[in-house]
Amino acid sequence: MRARKKQWGDALFAVHRDDFMAAPEPGKWSETLKVNEIHVELGCGKGDYWLGMADLYPNQGWIAFERNPTVAAIALKKAIERGVNSERLRLYCTDAQGLGEYFSPGEIDVLHLNFSDPWPKTRHHKRRLVAAKMLDVYQPLLSPQGRIIQKTDNVDLFNDSLVEMCRYFDLIEVDVDYRRQSHDEDVITEYEQRFMDLKQPIFRAVYQKRRD
Amino acid sequence: MRARKKQWGDALFAVHRDDFMAAPEPGKWSETLKVNEIHVELGCGKGDYWLGMADLYPNQGWIAFERNPTVAAIALKKAIERGVNSERLRLYCTDAQGLGEYFSPGEIDVLHLNFSDPWPKTRHHKRRLVAAKMLDVYQPLLSPQGRIIQKTDNVDLFNDSLVEMCRYFDLIEVDVDYRRQSHDEDVITEYEQRFMDLKQPIFRAVYQKRRD
Repeated sequence: MRARKKQWGDALFAVHRDDFMAAPEPGKWSETLKVNEIHVELGCGKGDYWLGMADLYPNQGWIAFERNPTVAAIALKKAIERGVNSERLRLYCTDAQGLGEYFSPGEIDVLHLNFSDPWPKTRHHKRRLVAAKMLDVYQPLLSPQGRIIQKTDNVDLFNDSLVEMCRYFDLIEVDVDYRRQSHDEDVITEYEQRFMDLKQPIFRAVYQKRRD
Repeated sequence: MRARKKQWGDALFAVHRDDFMAAPEPGKWSETLKVNEIHVELGCGKGDYWLGMADLYPNQGWIAFERNPTVAAIALKKAIERGVNSERLRLYCTDAQGLGEYFSPGEIDVLHLNFSDPWPKTRHHKRRLVAAKMLDVYQPLLSPQGRIIQKTDNVDLFNDSLVEMCRYFDLIEVDVDYRRQSHDEDVITEYEQRFMDLKQPIFRAVYQKRRD
């Protein structure tokens, strides 16, 4: 079953290597996508946030990364079924550690970590998208006023992220119960809605690149 | 009623001006109280946290401040009824803004903000114990590794505090659901227990003085 899914995904990736999966040269993102802001989502899962936000903000470029090929293929299929134009959207099936191969320093305006895998076991914390080694990857790629926006339902991930992120970035917004108020400016995925239906709080923080 | 309470408090304060309410010279706290660590609680309310923590940590000095005279008198009465020795405990009925008159720079090891008044209205935020003007008061008084420990049930206060405090201090610990695990090292007051009984999360953050 896993092999069949992968084959299906690989075929889809091949079909879209010149549109959704085409990568501009580093440094050429705004120019190629004809947008003012470059938004990057790491660990986009099945793509609901990526597609929803791109739909909400038609003047932004939305670049998604998902390292699981089966999940990335589902996201891509969803984009195609919705008839989305690939002009300012991209999707890459690759590990976030390779982010620096895609972008030049200062090229990312906003990095989104939306309900990232919490990797609950301590020995797996290094795999988190907020692990120190990842923050070293993000820091130079962010624009001078570049931001990282994180949302999660996971208490431990949020606690650890706050402490770690504050060592590298300035905390500019935080909400330990983000959905208590409505936020039309932000997409709620089905995944997020499940936690909201259970009355669990959603945690959100916005960090900004620290001035040198 | 208010006047009667105040009179009762004033009389109690007068009786204890040479023990619980006696203030050592700034710079002489550890020496006078014969303790290694100076803990200060701002806004001690009826004194449950102050007395509970002092009881739990017999080698620490615990200095409480409460600006409301009626409430401060209740805290003092509680200390006396419990037969607590004033040797390493103090209580002052004064505004936290005057903290610098009591302590020399670097003399406070830990500052506790335990369920401080959230002052929910925006125009009252400047009265909060985490208002920027207060952080300017605390910063020099903390010892080189000095910490501020904040606990609250209030979402807005916690959100705003995190952003404001991180501008002055290093965030070294945070928990957006502190009572999910047991913490025998920390006293639960009746006030806090009410929120826990309602299954409301308790928020906690520990900040450390930033290295120059």
